[in-house]
Amino acid sequence: MTPKLAIDSNRLWDSLMELAKIGATEKGGVRRLALSDLDGQARDLFIRWCKEAGCAVTVDAIGNIFARRAGEDDQLAPVITGSHIDTQPSGGKFDGNYGVMAGLEVLRTLNDHRVRTRAPLEVAVWTNEEGSRFTPVMMGSGVFVGAFPLEATLRRPDLEGITVGEALRKIGYAGPRPIGGRPIGAYFEAHIEQGPILEDTNNVIGVVTGALGLRWYDAVVTGQDAHAGPTPMRLRKDAIVAASKMVIEVNALAQRSQPDGRGTVGFMQVKPNSRNVIPGEVRFSVDLRHARDDQLDKMEGAMRDAFDQIAHAHNVSASVERVANYPACTFDAGCVSAVRNAATTLDLSHMDIVSGAGHDAIYMARVTPTSMIFVPCEGGISHNEIENAKPQDLAAGCNVLLNVMLERARIASQ
Amino acid sequence: MTPKLAIDSNRLWDSLMELAKIGATEKGGVRRLALSDLDGQARDLFIRWCKEAGCAVTVDAIGNIFARRAGEDDQLAPVITGSHIDTQPSGGKFDGNYGVMAGLEVLRTLNDHRVRTRAPLEVAVWTNEEGSRFTPVMMGSGVFVGAFPLEATLRRPDLEGITVGEALRKIGYAGPRPIGGRPIGAYFEAHIEQGPILEDTNNVIGVVTGALGLRWYDAVVTGQDAHAGPTPMRLRKDAIVAASKMVIEVNALAQRSQPDGRGTVGFMQVKPNSRNVIPGEVRFSVDLRHARDDQLDKMEGAMRDAFDQIAHAHNVSASVERVANYPACTFDAGCVSAVRNAATTLDLSHMDIVSGAGHDAIYMARVTPTSMIFVPCEGGISHNEIENAKPQDLAAGCNVLLNVMLERARIASQ
Repeated sequence: MTPKLAIDSNRLWDSLMELAKIGATEKGGVRRLALSDLDGQARDLFIRWCKEAGCAVTVDAIGNIFARRAGEDDQLAPVITGSHIDTQPSGGKFDGNYGVMAGLEVLRTLNDHRVRTRAPLEVAVWTNEEGSRFTPVMMGSGVFVGAFPLEATLRRPDLEGITVGEALRKIGYAGPRPIGGRPIGAYFEAHIEQGPILEDTNNVIGVVTGALGLRWYDAVVTGQDAHAGPTPMRLRKDAIVAASKMVIEVNALAQRSQPDGRGTVGFMQVKPNSRNVIPGEVRFSVDLRHARDDQLDKMEGAMRDAFDQIAHAHNVSASVERVANYPACTFDAGCVSAVRNAATTLDLSHMDIVSGAGHDAIYMARVTPTSMIFVPCEGGISHNEIENAKPQDLAAGCNVLLNVMLERARIASQ
Repeated sequence: MTPKLAIDSNRLWDSLMELAKIGATEKGGVRRLALSDLDGQARDLFIRWCKEAGCAVTVDAIGNIFARRAGEDDQLAPVITGSHIDTQPSGGKFDGNYGVMAGLEVLRTLNDHRVRTRAPLEVAVWTNEEGSRFTPVMMGSGVFVGAFPLEATLRRPDLEGITVGEALRKIGYAGPRPIGGRPIGAYFEAHIEQGPILEDTNNVIGVVTGALGLRWYDAVVTGQDAHAGPTPMRLRKDAIVAASKMVIEVNALAQRSQPDGRGTVGFMQVKPNSRNVIPGEVRFSVDLRHARDDQLDKMEGAMRDAFDQIAHAHNVSASVERVANYPACTFDAGCVSAVRNAATTLDLSHMDIVSGAGHDAIYMARVTPTSMIFVPCEGGISHNEIENAKPQDLAAGCNVLLNVMLERARIASQ
């Protein structure tokens, strides 16, 4: 470790702000949809900066960009960092962009101090992490690790019928490099937390130990719509009363599964949705998350039992269909320790945290030892134009990234 | 009383089915919006039948039709029955139409048996009871009793900008007769129940003692929308969990106010309504009903207290605005007894019942002793093309109507 080595906080911030001009919105956010012309401009800027920093830049067939700083022994597997620079339709300046600029700042810092690493370092920009224009989300990293087939993914259309392949060619990022197929030493990703825990606990660094497993469900409660006046309480088959009890049960079972359980009903549709008609049908979504798959099994079982009992008690029928299932992810113990140790060495307040959202790192963990570094964002707000983060927190996370990448790539000379 | 006098069940049914052809829908219902051409055709048919039955027909300035069978002493205040022949957009054959055809059948039966009454009898067709094309609902009876001013009501537009006055002139029902302004002996209205109570209790006649008071509210719960993954349960401001507890409280407070309390949430809108976002705002309606206004006060107070407590406990804010208030209505004790006695005399199973829905009779009760006669409808279903009722039940209600009108108008000769 070289405690004296530190990134340039102002340069990191200025790069982030410069990048944020591409697709800037009036409210201070960024709208830069994947593979749009604006995404192309941001990619061009990133590549220019990387080339100025002496990197070799390659682009693969799904448009992932890799900026490589050669190692002393360039045959060694590279240590990679990265994230994404596409945004939500009403996105912020930090989500994804921070991880990419932090990686670039690490390379620039090493250049400043003429530090050579034994293994090469790379900064990756993964294509279409957000999934706002094209599905699935985390497309570039997913294709990279073999979760999605390349050819079918290139044929995925946006709402206007433009395919991923066409959009890549239009902005000049249908790269020649084959997908994946090479050993990777380790993968680290710095990211704003997108949640309120670090801010609430006054920690600067989140040592990300893994990601919550996620299951999505569609529920339908069917009763009988009837006039709210002439229908006495005892003869009702009121779908919204039963559905409301189910919403509360989803919340309660997550409360019983702390600290890592989450239960959310985000979507609800009531029919016929008229003020003087007892609802005959209510559809709603359920989002269950937990750091352990066996706990998710338990939560799902409790939910199904409760829904059956509620439906029976309220003289309605209920169905629950699981429509998505992402297993929980545990990051590599060594990479997690490296992040924790770096935070300790740098005297930064830190805590272990589990990512509640999806990140490219979760796919990368399938092919290489991986961890993530979280920094606080204001109010936990993300996917929003008012997304904000403090320069000193962003710098702290970047210094942790510098340390763990150096440790993994081994310093060759300074 | 003349127990031998009985209406012609087949003629009543045939008249209903003939009337139902005007605006008949494929699914067996009727679409005959107020003051449409189809409404005009149905009015014409009614008037033709009334004239064939020897009635004098007049139309007032809001289009209400009065078919009058002269009394022995024609200066006496008339006993009026009636209802409406406009329908919901996807309405049935019986709602409203039954009350009008039952009135006509009473007159026809008296003609058959050459019964003269001391006071005159009238059958009224009230304009636009449903309120589907023009608001407010119960327009004709409301104007008749002075609840709405005539001139402003004639200027009310439909969605295409056509006013009530224009629509009345187009179908030839902008009548010359002034509004109201005359004594009325009593008002009776036969109607399908539009609820499941009579069917559920195996009663043929509902002796309607009044109508539930009704209050409508708009509620807004405001929390903070946030990502369902990274936001732990303890830091959430989840609007849908709080709103769900409020829905359950609306149901519970109505359950505590039996048999006449009703509490319904019919409308709900969730924002942003996305599967992986904790809802930051939920808007919903509340419909509270009770036979006593003091009990409605109590229900409203309990609701407001509960909403405040729930909002506080869930770290959200809540507002409740009362947007409509119709006081409870108690029908004239003498008219109610007359209906009950007639059902007893005719050996018809009957029960006292409170109307949960609005009817023209509720306005008429402001100006004259009033009651209603309910008959069962299949499954309690109304405002629906599959609305159905049994011929023998319709006949039973019509015989009760015959008896109470005769009692009130006093038989002069037979």
